[in-house]
Amino acid sequence: MPRLLRVAAAQMGATQLQDSRQHTLDRMVTLLERAAAQGAKLVVFPELAFTTFFPRWLLDPDEVDRYFENAMPNSQVAGLFERAKALKVGFYVGYAELTAEGHHYNSAITVGPDGTILGHYRKVHLPGTVEPRIDEPVQQLEKRYFKYGDLGFQAFYGAEDWHAPVMGMLICNDRRWPEAWREYGLQGVELMVMGYNSAAYDPNGGTAEDEPLRTFHSTIATQANAYMNATWAISVAKAGVEDGFGLIGGSCIVDPNGVVVAQAESHDDEVLIADIDLNACLQGKTKMFNFEMHRQPHHYRRIVDQTGVTLPPKL
Amino acid sequence: MPRLLRVAAAQMGATQLQDSRQHTLDRMVTLLERAAAQGAKLVVFPELAFTTFFPRWLLDPDEVDRYFENAMPNSQVAGLFERAKALKVGFYVGYAELTAEGHHYNSAITVGPDGTILGHYRKVHLPGTVEPRIDEPVQQLEKRYFKYGDLGFQAFYGAEDWHAPVMGMLICNDRRWPEAWREYGLQGVELMVMGYNSAAYDPNGGTAEDEPLRTFHSTIATQANAYMNATWAISVAKAGVEDGFGLIGGSCIVDPNGVVVAQAESHDDEVLIADIDLNACLQGKTKMFNFEMHRQPHHYRRIVDQTGVTLPPKL
Repeated sequence: MPRLLRVAAAQMGATQLQDSRQHTLDRMVTLLERAAAQGAKLVVFPELAFTTFFPRWLLDPDEVDRYFENAMPNSQVAGLFERAKALKVGFYVGYAELTAEGHHYNSAITVGPDGTILGHYRKVHLPGTVEPRIDEPVQQLEKRYFKYGDLGFQAFYGAEDWHAPVMGMLICNDRRWPEAWREYGLQGVELMVMGYNSAAYDPNGGTAEDEPLRTFHSTIATQANAYMNATWAISVAKAGVEDGFGLIGGSCIVDPNGVVVAQAESHDDEVLIADIDLNACLQGKTKMFNFEMHRQPHHYRRIVDQTGVTLPPKL
Repeated sequence: MPRLLRVAAAQMGATQLQDSRQHTLDRMVTLLERAAAQGAKLVVFPELAFTTFFPRWLLDPDEVDRYFENAMPNSQVAGLFERAKALKVGFYVGYAELTAEGHHYNSAITVGPDGTILGHYRKVHLPGTVEPRIDEPVQQLEKRYFKYGDLGFQAFYGAEDWHAPVMGMLICNDRRWPEAWREYGLQGVELMVMGYNSAAYDPNGGTAEDEPLRTFHSTIATQANAYMNATWAISVAKAGVEDGFGLIGGSCIVDPNGVVVAQAESHDDEVLIADIDLNACLQGKTKMFNFEMHRQPHHYRRIVDQTGVTLPPKL
């Protein structure tokens, strides 16, 4: 018997440094309403959805906290929460989190159709550097502005109205790390949700990676990790050109076979809709990826016993 | 400065139960010679290359050992080793291993151009069952005929003539397990080699997986795991219809971006050639997948602390 759920990926186009919070929130409410009008019960927004991707800038220390949310919800974002609750639609959204203790995280929450926060995640795999790279026009300073996520990978149940899927959240770079997916796979995940801001090219010209290749990387990591954990996945971009620097699009909804069932075609605000059967995960979970039958954890010790590479001994 | 190596994937078509060992060995020598004639220095053969995929049959116990090699090389396979050494070509080959102690493994070796055995691997992720499934026309009895590999995932150096790449071996089902790839990634692997025999469809009709989907699974697992570990990968099928039961083809050579640079088009004996630059791994290993900078092993404990799924607690 299928467990059907209509979901939406709400890709967002660029948000400029000077865009007002209200302007961005209005765009998000519009995307939410478009998804709800098509019957979606769960809408997935990108990473750091309420602002531009500010870690590309070396900011004045006094300026940093204005990109952060000191509570969720709060007055700046309440409009999205209120509209979603009125429409009985839940959502995933990425945001910059400032805790009462003054700690900063790159975070995401999943909110149920009644406005309850069902899950809270803090990004574990922060890319970039702490110190700015000199003489470069753009930075990737996530390691400067955020602490590493301290909540691990804690799966949770989605709303009853969604057939209570086992859900997991990731943020951007996390989706390239199979360890992160496997942590959720080992909790029986059926629906992974994640947002991202991924550079379309290296503005410093330091690499041979162009936008099609970077979009391919994003897509294939999502496809294969969904397959290898027998889960649905919804992976959503903030896309387009933010203050001169390009972000890939390619938002996608992927089935437990790793097959892309919907993918964004633009770099703008765009809604993807799919009807997903959560029970499509059962084939993989009971056969090829029946972990209890087939995994051999005593052979996986390097994964936790070392961080970096240790070359084999020279003979 | 590039470290260029010309490699070959030697896909094999079907081998029937009644095919003589000599007939199969002659085909392998022909593939080796075709690859060598095109300048390949390393030729990758499939899993269990010397025989049909015998674990599909419930064999009389007295019949089992004739599919196994009690030494490597031995008189039955010596012709391949001798021809390779004469041509100064090395190879990976999968075979059924019978040890002096009477233990059975699904194994592979990589042999250098001078005939030295550079690495030895025993398959860790055995699919299938110990007991035959009743009333089914074909079985998957790897868990019956083989012990689980006890050597772990030990990377090794390829021949100096190949620019001494850090190499890793997998066998068939292993390639779908990101833990296996990561074990090698954590040893700095630059070239993964693996063979497989993968059913093209379920002859019992129990699943919705057809041959294109199964080939896609095989390819995408290789692509994404190569990308996420910044390594080249050569993945080689035994393909075609063996005694009425189909095996997928799709042998491929994949670069460290996860891009397929060569893929088989047939289900027959077929040689793929590629010139690979081992230094193409450096981009991934020093940036996106700089493990020392970005991995967070304290969050990966479930990977070794549990084998099967533990659902999140109900609230």
